[in-house]
Amino acid sequence: MLPLAFEKLISAYRDEINSQLLTVYNAGPESLVEPINYVLSGKGKRVRPILTLFTAESFGGTKAESLPAALAVEILHNFTLVHDDIMDEDNIRHGKPTVHHKWDVGTAILSGDAMLSLALKMVQKSPRFNEKLMTSFIDGLQAVCEGQAYDKEFESRDNVTLDEYIYMIDLKTGYLIGLSAELGAISVGAKDEDVIKARDYGRLIGRAFQIQDDLLEIYSDSINMGKSLESDLLLAKKTYLMIQAKEAVPFELNSALELAQENFTTGLEKVRTVLIDSGIRQKAEEKINSTIKEADLLLSELNIDIEKLSFFSNIITTRGN
Amino acid sequence: MLPLAFEKLISAYRDEINSQLLTVYNAGPESLVEPINYVLSGKGKRVRPILTLFTAESFGGTKAESLPAALAVEILHNFTLVHDDIMDEDNIRHGKPTVHHKWDVGTAILSGDAMLSLALKMVQKSPRFNEKLMTSFIDGLQAVCEGQAYDKEFESRDNVTLDEYIYMIDLKTGYLIGLSAELGAISVGAKDEDVIKARDYGRLIGRAFQIQDDLLEIYSDSINMGKSLESDLLLAKKTYLMIQAKEAVPFELNSALELAQENFTTGLEKVRTVLIDSGIRQKAEEKINSTIKEADLLLSELNIDIEKLSFFSNIITTRGN
Repeated sequence: MLPLAFEKLISAYRDEINSQLLTVYNAGPESLVEPINYVLSGKGKRVRPILTLFTAESFGGTKAESLPAALAVEILHNFTLVHDDIMDEDNIRHGKPTVHHKWDVGTAILSGDAMLSLALKMVQKSPRFNEKLMTSFIDGLQAVCEGQAYDKEFESRDNVTLDEYIYMIDLKTGYLIGLSAELGAISVGAKDEDVIKARDYGRLIGRAFQIQDDLLEIYSDSINMGKSLESDLLLAKKTYLMIQAKEAVPFELNSALELAQENFTTGLEKVRTVLIDSGIRQKAEEKINSTIKEADLLLSELNIDIEKLSFFSNIITTRGN
Repeated sequence: MLPLAFEKLISAYRDEINSQLLTVYNAGPESLVEPINYVLSGKGKRVRPILTLFTAESFGGTKAESLPAALAVEILHNFTLVHDDIMDEDNIRHGKPTVHHKWDVGTAILSGDAMLSLALKMVQKSPRFNEKLMTSFIDGLQAVCEGQAYDKEFESRDNVTLDEYIYMIDLKTGYLIGLSAELGAISVGAKDEDVIKARDYGRLIGRAFQIQDDLLEIYSDSINMGKSLESDLLLAKKTYLMIQAKEAVPFELNSALELAQENFTTGLEKVRTVLIDSGIRQKAEEKINSTIKEADLLLSELNIDIEKLSFFSNIITTRGN
């Protein structure tokens, strides 16, 4: 498929997902219906449900067979955003005030909880529903909770290892992207071993994506990334790069971070240089590439049309350029 | 069964539930394992899971068949307590600091979320699992969220009708007690029409229990009820009795509430007298009794051994004496 045709296809799928999401919950208490529809009409890229649909189609199934699972994954993802934004005290998401900021913490907690019930009901609506869909979905819920818990724990720990960090992002980010592919495969009746490969493909894509996020956070303009680089950096947030820098070049890192507290632009420039000089930036890039290769290898072992799925590997290699 | 033997049986079931609850979640992030086990070791009466077990046995099934469903209901109930306590800013629950008070709001949100995943997994562990168990459980989750949402909405509304109030408590309280009986019946393979009767029995018991709670809140010592009567009264919380008093004797109620702001004991006495003189107290008692009768009628229509289930009707008639 030519790049332009691909863009059009994704855009059409995104539109369908967006319009379906707005039909999910329209009768109930106003204090739930309003915030939930506010969240579900947010400007997310819908990467996860599109991955579900593409996986289903790659296995020879139809969009219709996997649409409920795709919507369920997107609702689950948005549930985590609503609750995480309270915990992380983030007031803006996709350019709009977050639920707890626009309404209040109670409304955000309850809207998230209710979204979870909607997501679970959506899983059950899969035309070829079987209990494996539900089991994987519930495991996914537990994983994202545990990932977020580790992430919060790491904030107050000084000795987080790179392995622990990878374990955390696999739970917090990778698991849900893996689930998106997994549910797409299950919902069209793929064989168990193929389901696992599709799931692991998604998990690796999620891991690469998160490491790339860590890299771009330091090397791109913070406005493009849509979050507050300054506060993250000043708090010396544990990321794939920072954990390594703290280990390998603690003195250089600390002096750069101290500089950043006085003069942010100069300090950031120094941090960037430290990461380049120590080879940590390059190591991160290599890790992203090797993870993508690992993911693509899994795809190649599947006897399916991988054209659409390769798109997800490509998002990462072309992102940030 | 003699009352003493019954007490012993309930106590044994409660012990088993308590020890099972402590095996549910022991591997994971410390920031989840600790608060979750703290919550699950709370001094709850375990009314809901005991209802599940009793219902299962009444239908000729075994405790073992319904134990996972019973535990799932209790975990779901505790999930609602953890999240509701944040929203209601309650700092004490069963004589212990609440999770958000002992730890923080983020920990309480995330622990609740993770408990939900544990409850869902527990449902799936039912020996005779079928999808009806899951569907009812998810419906229950949605109902309690909606009930809590209406409850919060009512706080800032002046025109809540008695019907709206009943609708709210049915969702917030009745639904989950109904679910406890329903899952007990489903988990031992009861017929659909019997499942519905067991469920509706539980819902009515829940409704009667909540109206009785509203009554006892005004007529018992606040210490026995374990919550702050004073603040509730002063805020003129909407309850089954207060909604009617506000409608029928607004002038008398307001002057009693004003008095309570100056002198709590005298004001409370006045509120009690107003409710008696207006016949509202009596109406509440009649409503409790007629609801219990309605519940018992449903039981009598079932061709099962109702001895254990009658216990739940009896709790209410003997409570507060």
